[in-house]
Amino acid sequence: MAKNITPREQDYSQWYVDVVREAKLADYSPVKGCMVIRPNGYAIWEKMQQALDKMFKEAGHVNAYFPLFIPQSFLEKEAQHVEGFALECALVTHSGLERVEGESRLRPTGKLDEPLVIRPTSETIIWAMYKNWIQSYRDLPLLINQWANVVRWEMRTRLFLRTAEFLWQEGHTAHATADEAEAEARRMLEVYRTFAEEYMAMPVIAGLKSEGQKFPGAVDTYCIEAMMQDKKALQAGTSHYLGQNFAKAFDVTFQNERNELEYVYATSWGVSTRLVGALVMTHGDDDGIIVPPRLAAWPVYAVPIYKNSEQKAAVMGVLEPLLADLKNRGIGYRLDDRDQMTPGFKFAECELMGHPLRLEVGPKDVAKGQVVLVMRHNREKRSVSLAQAVQEIPKVLDAVQSELFQRANTLLTKHTAPVETYDELRRAMEEDSGFALCHWAGNREDEERVQEETKATLRVIPLDGQREMGKCILTGKPSSQRVVFAKAY
Amino acid sequence: MAKNITPREQDYSQWYVDVVREAKLADYSPVKGCMVIRPNGYAIWEKMQQALDKMFKEAGHVNAYFPLFIPQSFLEKEAQHVEGFALECALVTHSGLERVEGESRLRPTGKLDEPLVIRPTSETIIWAMYKNWIQSYRDLPLLINQWANVVRWEMRTRLFLRTAEFLWQEGHTAHATADEAEAEARRMLEVYRTFAEEYMAMPVIAGLKSEGQKFPGAVDTYCIEAMMQDKKALQAGTSHYLGQNFAKAFDVTFQNERNELEYVYATSWGVSTRLVGALVMTHGDDDGIIVPPRLAAWPVYAVPIYKNSEQKAAVMGVLEPLLADLKNRGIGYRLDDRDQMTPGFKFAECELMGHPLRLEVGPKDVAKGQVVLVMRHNREKRSVSLAQAVQEIPKVLDAVQSELFQRANTLLTKHTAPVETYDELRRAMEEDSGFALCHWAGNREDEERVQEETKATLRVIPLDGQREMGKCILTGKPSSQRVVFAKAY
Repeated sequence: MAKNITPREQDYSQWYVDVVREAKLADYSPVKGCMVIRPNGYAIWEKMQQALDKMFKEAGHVNAYFPLFIPQSFLEKEAQHVEGFALECALVTHSGLERVEGESRLRPTGKLDEPLVIRPTSETIIWAMYKNWIQSYRDLPLLINQWANVVRWEMRTRLFLRTAEFLWQEGHTAHATADEAEAEARRMLEVYRTFAEEYMAMPVIAGLKSEGQKFPGAVDTYCIEAMMQDKKALQAGTSHYLGQNFAKAFDVTFQNERNELEYVYATSWGVSTRLVGALVMTHGDDDGIIVPPRLAAWPVYAVPIYKNSEQKAAVMGVLEPLLADLKNRGIGYRLDDRDQMTPGFKFAECELMGHPLRLEVGPKDVAKGQVVLVMRHNREKRSVSLAQAVQEIPKVLDAVQSELFQRANTLLTKHTAPVETYDELRRAMEEDSGFALCHWAGNREDEERVQEETKATLRVIPLDGQREMGKCILTGKPSSQRVVFAKAY
Repeated sequence: MAKNITPREQDYSQWYVDVVREAKLADYSPVKGCMVIRPNGYAIWEKMQQALDKMFKEAGHVNAYFPLFIPQSFLEKEAQHVEGFALECALVTHSGLERVEGESRLRPTGKLDEPLVIRPTSETIIWAMYKNWIQSYRDLPLLINQWANVVRWEMRTRLFLRTAEFLWQEGHTAHATADEAEAEARRMLEVYRTFAEEYMAMPVIAGLKSEGQKFPGAVDTYCIEAMMQDKKALQAGTSHYLGQNFAKAFDVTFQNERNELEYVYATSWGVSTRLVGALVMTHGDDDGIIVPPRLAAWPVYAVPIYKNSEQKAAVMGVLEPLLADLKNRGIGYRLDDRDQMTPGFKFAECELMGHPLRLEVGPKDVAKGQVVLVMRHNREKRSVSLAQAVQEIPKVLDAVQSELFQRANTLLTKHTAPVETYDELRRAMEEDSGFALCHWAGNREDEERVQEETKATLRVIPLDGQREMGKCILTGKPSSQRVVFAKAY
């Protein structure tokens, strides 16, 4: 157990704060609600970006960039949308500061005719542009993604999970038919599921949001929900089928193949730096974070062990060619050859920072023609002959990736259970027992009542849930599928 | 000459607007001063980012992310800094919108205690954080870069070149000694020079800014200046040695090796999406833009030529394996196999979008066992045997890259000339004759006078300028080196 990190058992919430600080992933900023993403945290986000960007492009999307500022009147054009974001909007009202004689502070000047909203999401500004770009079915589909910062004023903040400003990607696509747009929303949900499971090693439940939880302005919101180690749910990505709502709000029509004018169909989808927090909470332990190999900037952390320069030369003579071989195979590594630090210090730091595989070489290893591999997630130590190391290391990394997923999946499976009555749900939530699979046929108000009384929200209506007849736990109305209720971040 | 594009000879400024619009690089947004970077323009920026990011990392820098919002009081801590940016600051004053009965528009609510400035640059927020991160010489150097959007309220805007919001990178480094920080500022200047010349194929003059032109808060500002085709100068990148100015403003000290407390030394350096405009204006012609191969998303644009499906099959049978070979060699291509467009249409589009090399294959080429390569920048057509194509194409791309640089360099050299008197400078500027190399020993007011009377500004004091004794063209005072005066973007 690392010093300065509260054990998870004792206080999971404090553990998260400690581990984010100690691993130097992020820091609070002097502006309330905003965070600074430090290099260690940003490196994880960069790897996530690379993997996602590649997947988006392979699915035919291109990147673009739309303005940070949205005229207030644009936000107001889609009724549900503005209701959803009105109370979280940072507003720009002036364009400068001026010195006024006799005052020590500068004074705002250049009052704008209309306040500008810092984008909380970009549907409105993007659809205002799409109006100019789309005339005919030949201009469709339009498959655009943007990497950007957004601002949603939040008072109860938590590094990565909930901050006033965060980084994200937002895809905004335009289609000629409802079916095509629906298919796109589901396709991107699958991209997110694949990314979460295959890169983050984080199992998720994919499905639909309820009426009460969907995106303001969406017809349907799809999402992936993950379970953190404290058994709370975390929404890890959303994909919205927007129907013609934004096309109507911004009057975006196209000439279809039958020469008729029709409103365009839309989707939008996004994941954010929140995923860095999800990764920490899915895999981290009392010694620090654990980064899955496929998202590690340096999957291999090499520590040479020596007591004098002669030993160092011998050890480096073995280590350096091996690292060169790894590099040739595209395996990232970091060599920690700082003389002033002891190996023990380096091991602890390596565990804190979550490099998935430590590679140790000491004089005894040189003598035996071997290297030592230490897996971060289970502390397993393994000696491998030097000759085989370069073949062995990628296999071990693959095994680590898959074991991390299995471990998280075991947690999810173990703590996801059917709940048959409302009382049972209440008890389950009091005991923090995880995801409750309930029959449900309530409306938005019913959802609110459940949240008030149990702190659980309807997280997701699973897409691959089995059809099963039953009765709603709250209303007793007939239901044909179970949904997931859970406490959530 | 492409339709809808004004020839450069006729109106260079209009040509730029036309070519940016027609090649779909960017668009004006409904918010005054802001632009939308369209996918074609963003693709160029992405390639620039990749190349620069790699160079920064190879030089030991890591990426991080700091908040968009800067408290007004922070900006005010460095006197010159706030003077420089005060009139361009977008100010956030409220955190939400609320509905008020009887009013149709929502009303700002949640007035902030202190206005927040949207970052025009991040020195102040970053140094507020560095105060917590730096204690000892062991924490130095700190070499951090950020990719971000910034806002500088501008009224006279021009797509890419001058917009209220733009994208950029800003490096912010902290050092234990003045020498080390100075060396860092120069090292990053060299990175920019290398990037401009080797990737953008854009020759630059590297040097120092004068007192009148340096960054608000800097001790020294280094810059690279390029010449556009209308012979105006464009500042393409800056690197600042900030001395201890920001460390003092934010009280950032460290314990040096002699156990004394000392203020930290700083640099900052940045390039922006302005470089996309620079690229367009350096290489573009009356038919569209020209992207240098090293920054082209698709250096090769493949156009199969056929009249029926039989011909198409034959042509694709030759083209597809060749493209697969190119892909294996890491050469990006786009295959334009749209049946509904004629080859002529595709050629024009390919020229407009500036793909540096067009690869044509028609039935006759198949019969002859050849492919046709057409270079965008000089329209040169060349038949290459199919067997040799995969070896030949990378060579041609290298040649294109180098010819683009040579062509731009010829322009720069031809239009950079010594000017011996103030009258001569005035005439040179009236005639738009390019860069004037003048002896100079004036002060800030003298610079302002020159600008007022000739429209020229002191662009750069070249670093590799020869030492040469002479007299200041304006003041007659002795001078030991020539500087560059020019009209500028």
